[in-house]
Amino acid sequence: MSRPAGSQPLEERGFVREIPSKAGQFSEWYTAVVLRAELADYSPVRGCIVVRPYGYTIWELMQQGLDRRFKATGHTNAYFPLFIPQGFLAREAEHVEGFAPEVAWVTRGGGEELAEPLAVRPTSETIIGHMYARWIRSYRDLPVLINQWCNVVRWEKATRPFLRTMEFLWQEGHTAHRTAEEAEAEARQMLEVYRDFVERDLAIPVLAGRKPESEKFPGAERSYTIEALMPDGQALQSGTSHNLGQNFARAFGIKFLDSDNVEKHAWTTSWGISWRVLGGMIMVHGDDRGLVLPPAVAPFQAVVVPILTGSARESVLAAARELAAQLAEAGLRVRLDDRTEVTPGWKFNDWEMRGVPLRVEVGPRDLAQRQAVLAPRTGGGRRAVPMDGLAAAAAGELAALHRELFRQARAYLESHTVSASTAGELVDAIAARRGFVRATWCGADACEQALRRDSGASPRVIVEEPAEGACIACGAPARDIVYYARAY
Amino acid sequence: MSRPAGSQPLEERGFVREIPSKAGQFSEWYTAVVLRAELADYSPVRGCIVVRPYGYTIWELMQQGLDRRFKATGHTNAYFPLFIPQGFLAREAEHVEGFAPEVAWVTRGGGEELAEPLAVRPTSETIIGHMYARWIRSYRDLPVLINQWCNVVRWEKATRPFLRTMEFLWQEGHTAHRTAEEAEAEARQMLEVYRDFVERDLAIPVLAGRKPESEKFPGAERSYTIEALMPDGQALQSGTSHNLGQNFARAFGIKFLDSDNVEKHAWTTSWGISWRVLGGMIMVHGDDRGLVLPPAVAPFQAVVVPILTGSARESVLAAARELAAQLAEAGLRVRLDDRTEVTPGWKFNDWEMRGVPLRVEVGPRDLAQRQAVLAPRTGGGRRAVPMDGLAAAAAGELAALHRELFRQARAYLESHTVSASTAGELVDAIAARRGFVRATWCGADACEQALRRDSGASPRVIVEEPAEGACIACGAPARDIVYYARAY
Repeated sequence: MSRPAGSQPLEERGFVREIPSKAGQFSEWYTAVVLRAELADYSPVRGCIVVRPYGYTIWELMQQGLDRRFKATGHTNAYFPLFIPQGFLAREAEHVEGFAPEVAWVTRGGGEELAEPLAVRPTSETIIGHMYARWIRSYRDLPVLINQWCNVVRWEKATRPFLRTMEFLWQEGHTAHRTAEEAEAEARQMLEVYRDFVERDLAIPVLAGRKPESEKFPGAERSYTIEALMPDGQALQSGTSHNLGQNFARAFGIKFLDSDNVEKHAWTTSWGISWRVLGGMIMVHGDDRGLVLPPAVAPFQAVVVPILTGSARESVLAAARELAAQLAEAGLRVRLDDRTEVTPGWKFNDWEMRGVPLRVEVGPRDLAQRQAVLAPRTGGGRRAVPMDGLAAAAAGELAALHRELFRQARAYLESHTVSASTAGELVDAIAARRGFVRATWCGADACEQALRRDSGASPRVIVEEPAEGACIACGAPARDIVYYARAY
Repeated sequence: MSRPAGSQPLEERGFVREIPSKAGQFSEWYTAVVLRAELADYSPVRGCIVVRPYGYTIWELMQQGLDRRFKATGHTNAYFPLFIPQGFLAREAEHVEGFAPEVAWVTRGGGEELAEPLAVRPTSETIIGHMYARWIRSYRDLPVLINQWCNVVRWEKATRPFLRTMEFLWQEGHTAHRTAEEAEAEARQMLEVYRDFVERDLAIPVLAGRKPESEKFPGAERSYTIEALMPDGQALQSGTSHNLGQNFARAFGIKFLDSDNVEKHAWTTSWGISWRVLGGMIMVHGDDRGLVLPPAVAPFQAVVVPILTGSARESVLAAARELAAQLAEAGLRVRLDDRTEVTPGWKFNDWEMRGVPLRVEVGPRDLAQRQAVLAPRTGGGRRAVPMDGLAAAAAGELAALHRELFRQARAYLESHTVSASTAGELVDAIAARRGFVRATWCGADACEQALRRDSGASPRVIVEEPAEGACIACGAPARDIVYYARAY
């Protein structure tokens, strides 16, 4: 990080004061962790946040984890304009209805009023659709598999860092295909990429499946989602993938000459994940001492803290340097905390607040025994390991820590998912903040609307399992299994 | 790339038609190369371009080359808001005068008129200055060394892909320091980082030095620049680094308590480089057959083209696959072009248009002799090398190709730089499109203004060399050596 952590006067550093308890004051706890771990800060523009170096480094690691997966599945990045002509948004009827109320408009530029206002992109299906119509001519041009990393703006009055911001960073994938089947396979594949990323890199288990009609992306034929469960019992939509059918292809004229010499509309998809999952990760894994970072996205996976006392100072410091070098050599992201103006105990608190997964301590007695002490952030056993084998031991601890984070999160998800066999049970379970409530559904809008209204929860995801029995709302034969929850 | 190159009907692919000659129609040549190599396309929003996958991959490689250098010099990335409150821009007097005319304004959002319009950032000194004032308290918090990769908007009516666009991608570094000396050292260090990147990764030689007062960044104490020379004799400002003194610290209240217990204003810098250098790279190295890419930023450093004729088809294809695998194994970015619907000659043209530095050919006769043929994009000798040693030979060719590109560009720069010992010589040299004109200057504004007016050129850079003799405008003793040129 650009500024040495802990360099401010102690009394100004948040973690010296108590942070609110995660269980008791969840919302305050979240904000305190975000600010005190220096992940983000509020900005002078309502709705916009500043992502500070430590938080942005986590986002960069997330980007790398996703980008690697996108490229492995044949996608390439590109960049489309920030501004979208007003008329474009209106081309796809559902799309404009969904997004127009949230748009920020540029009406003045270069000292003049614009003849046609420009939308600051809330998402880019329309302008990308326009370009695809120019680029695609023949079935040989398909598929087009493009992703874009960018900022988007959706007008918001409330601000919750990462979770709800007016401007946010995300990626949006946009693909065009020759057949309906290929588009459907792409939409499902990218949902699976998201699930894999969120589970393997962020250690967050999710429910994956389809959105009901009422929750679809505006303009999509079918939307897929991964939904995570937060510690307050609310669901967090963590990534979505949309089969857009031929809706945008029709609206923007994306046509190709097929091998049978017939001109056809392409089939398109879009899929996106934003820095919101960073917020989800904070909520799922953090504890009363602060942030807890899964190793895959931790800016520092290990911090080496020398215990500098007495006459062994120099030799302990030298050993700490060697240990840090050994870990870096093995490919770990490591930080040596050799500050002398703060105590080891202060450093322990500092790095715990910042969520560093593994602390490596070395003091005079350890040095005498050629050992170092490993202290994983999740608690449990501190243990001494021989200095020579530190890197392997550290890698093992990090892998175990990831598994432990995932295990805990899955245990929470499972223990906070209940089945409701009547509408009343669903309402009661939601009222008790039980998390996900699994219910059978006939597929009728009226039943969904009644359950929403009575419970205050929304249908988050329809899972791919055969439904048996009756709709909990009307008693008709069930078609789907739906998970309800209150949601962010 | 997401779409197989050359999959459109031949007659629609630009390179089948002649492209304009670089020497004869430079501007048309540039546009043709950008469009036909599929680097970028025009968008429906005037001033905004679409960067296509092939062009964006080059930009990603540039970003990596820069980002690695930024991190090696202690900087970390962060992200600040796209929107800046109107009042912020006005705080630093020179800054607002410089940027206000170019700003795009958001005046409506969420269906309402805004009480205070929001500027779409043209650069971020102001909002970052505001945040630094919140974060910096003590000398221990300094230096703050932050960089941001983002989009910025400066209102433009003309559009030249990469060179002049309303929205562009860039990075902007913003640092705060304890002393004037540290800020000055930082500004100079980052100029050197840019010079190193542009010369080593893009194979473009530059003149590095200081901007005269008249060309400084609005709000800077001192601006540094690297200036490259384009084949039409015009200079391209390719990266700038600014010592902002205490100007922004005063405007935004960036103060710290120093170790002597005195509160002081910090010293800040900012430095930026944009996708404009991608345009410069196209212009400097391209030729009448299209793009020529330096290996460091080539999406594919080598393309393997099997010559598939007669009965040896399968074995040649298998050999081509092995060769491509050998190159990939050695860490090269390689593409196997195994298309069967186009001829090898067509592929040669295609990849030459796209600037791939090295072509590897393998045909039945090569196979019999266990050899492959290397054809560097810069022309000169095709040569056969043993298959077993391909990777080493290819790496050697790529290194030689980079050196050759740099040598050619430097030879051009040197042969298009002349010294003027009178104002008349300067005017004549500029009129003859000679490139850079070196002149001695007394430092007086009046002399600079007269030379500008008479020549139509601007003073691009003051180099760090002792000036001897007299100002070419007024005859007073010279203070500086200035390079004049017309500029993009």
